[in-house]
Amino acid sequence: MTDQPSRADFPFFHDFRVRYNETDQQGVVFFGNFAIYYDTSLSEFLRWVGHDYKNQMRDTGTDFHIVRSTIDYIAPLRYDDEIEVGVRIARLGTASLTWAGAIFVKGNDAPVSTAEIVWVNADQSNGTSAPVPEKLRGLIEAKLAAMAD
Amino acid sequence: MTDQPSRADFPFFHDFRVRYNETDQQGVVFFGNFAIYYDTSLSEFLRWVGHDYKNQMRDTGTDFHIVRSTIDYIAPLRYDDEIEVGVRIARLGTASLTWAGAIFVKGNDAPVSTAEIVWVNADQSNGTSAPVPEKLRGLIEAKLAAMAD
Amino acid sequence: MTDQPSRADFPFFHDFRVRYNETDQQGVVFFGNFAIYYDTSLSEFLRWVGHDYKNQMRDTGTDFHIVRSTIDYIAPLRYDDEIEVGVRIARLGTASLTWAGAIFVKGNDAPVSTAEIVWVNADQSNGTSAPVPEKLRGLIEAKLAAMAD
Amino acid sequence: MTDQPSRADFPFFHDFRVRYNETDQQGVVFFGNFAIYYDTSLSEFLRWVGHDYKNQMRDTGTDFHIVRSTIDYIAPLRYDDEIEVGVRIARLGTASLTWAGAIFVKGNDAPVSTAEIVWVNADQSNGTSAPVPEKLRGLIEAKLAAMAD
Repeated sequence: MTDQPSRADFPFFHDFRVRYNETDQQGVVFFGNFAIYYDTSLSEFLRWVGHDYKNQMRDTGTDFHIVRSTIDYIAPLRYDDEIEVGVRIARLGTASLTWAGAIFVKGNDAPVSTAEIVWVNADQSNGTSAPVPEKLRGLIEAKLAAMAD
Repeated sequence: MTDQPSRADFPFFHDFRVRYNETDQQGVVFFGNFAIYYDTSLSEFLRWVGHDYKNQMRDTGTDFHIVRSTIDYIAPLRYDDEIEVGVRIARLGTASLTWAGAIFVKGNDAPVSTAEIVWVNADQSNGTSAPVPEKLRGLIEAKLAAMAD
Repeated sequence: MTDQPSRADFPFFHDFRVRYNETDQQGVVFFGNFAIYYDTSLSEFLRWVGHDYKNQMRDTGTDFHIVRSTIDYIAPLRYDDEIEVGVRIARLGTASLTWAGAIFVKGNDAPVSTAEIVWVNADQSNGTSAPVPEKLRGLIEAKLAAMAD
Repeated sequence: MTDQPSRADFPFFHDFRVRYNETDQQGVVFFGNFAIYYDTSLSEFLRWVGHDYKNQMRDTGTDFHIVRSTIDYIAPLRYDDEIEVGVRIARLGTASLTWAGAIFVKGNDAPVSTAEIVWVNADQSNGTSAPVPEKLRGLIEAKLAAMAD
């Protein structure tokens, strides 16, 4: 367990409370719904750095596609649990963004889940990969620099 | 219970098997997921009469919007249940389609759910209501006539 | 439209931001997901009056089942919309709770959706209807009385 | 692409047609919903070998928990696509099952997605890992032996 991330590894968190419909008959959150927590938190990270994701397609003709998700399910989540999803950028490539994430139950330091999610930016006119928008790259670098100060 | 529909009230059925993720921690299908069974079955009804719904938007510039759903939940559905969703058109208006539906568990005659769902066709360029596509109207009437024979 | 509710009709609101996965290919929230907004808001209403819903089953042996939902879809919701779901108790019966709800987009006074949802309390040992827990009834009445002052 | 699986790598397939609600505003299936296709197909694989998964908990006091999912998203899925999900057991451990899966669009030989999903069996009374039920192990081995003939 020594390689599991802690809260200190993440510059940004987005909070959720588990909804009733997200559970299944095992009494825990269905594993496919962890994807929703992570995906929503990535969007919120982009909002946090100042990126206008909602209009990226209109502004640049490009949009991100997910190409890989790896999710570890360490402990169950239950109805009404309050969770904090930590997000950081593990790698900022030319056309790709690799995210690292982890889910913590409020008040607990050990993550109940960790994830690596890879996005590739794509030109929506022909589907080929496209550079991460320059403006977004600048916003990410500025935010990381500000945090390092 | 005398006014509950029976299988004989429906000309068309679409079958499902309840998926694990559709249950919630009560051990039954979350009520919001009944909407998925009904919605998918309406699409299959349109396929059955011969309508190319997937290309309706491209072919006519119009698409259906739901304006009202009324769903009764009479008995629970459980994981792995095999269900049959009956669908009929309760009213074919100028710009609207009113559907009646019911869900039966295989081998049982009493419905576990009934529904009324109202669609309005809309011009996608300006959002105003638009006539139900003539071709679809013809297909529905032809199918109903063929069944009456 | 004169009979549509306004914010003033509701004592309680729960806020959401539309998640990406809640949209469908029409570019708007899939109608079945409105059920999630309403359901989660009813739970939050119960928390607001002081009811320990999570432990109702353990404490009383009873749980609420939905028996009917009627939802009107007046205008579409889109990704990232900030919404406020108003909830009130329309009728508190012996064994049933009838909820009225409406969804407002932040900054707009006209609802984009209204709903009536009926719950019946049921004894989980045999499925028969059971009185609404006395303690919950008291909490609701106390909250309504406090608001009327 | 040389290491991507083909249909010949899988002894079992389960078919789906993409539902409208499974798409998102990009016009393609939301990535979190791929988990549903895989999960449902694993259950169907267990049915195919003759395992009574629905009653495993009652019969053995154990149930499977997912501990890791790795999913590659190679090409998008769209509304109404007919898909075939191939499943095989990549490794049958003492207490764990490692699944390999791939999704093919009908008529296409290249997978649109591949997955590896790891389950661990757990004693539901205390949450500790438990051997894969003997009977299930026998059913899997018998099926694989029969296919090798």
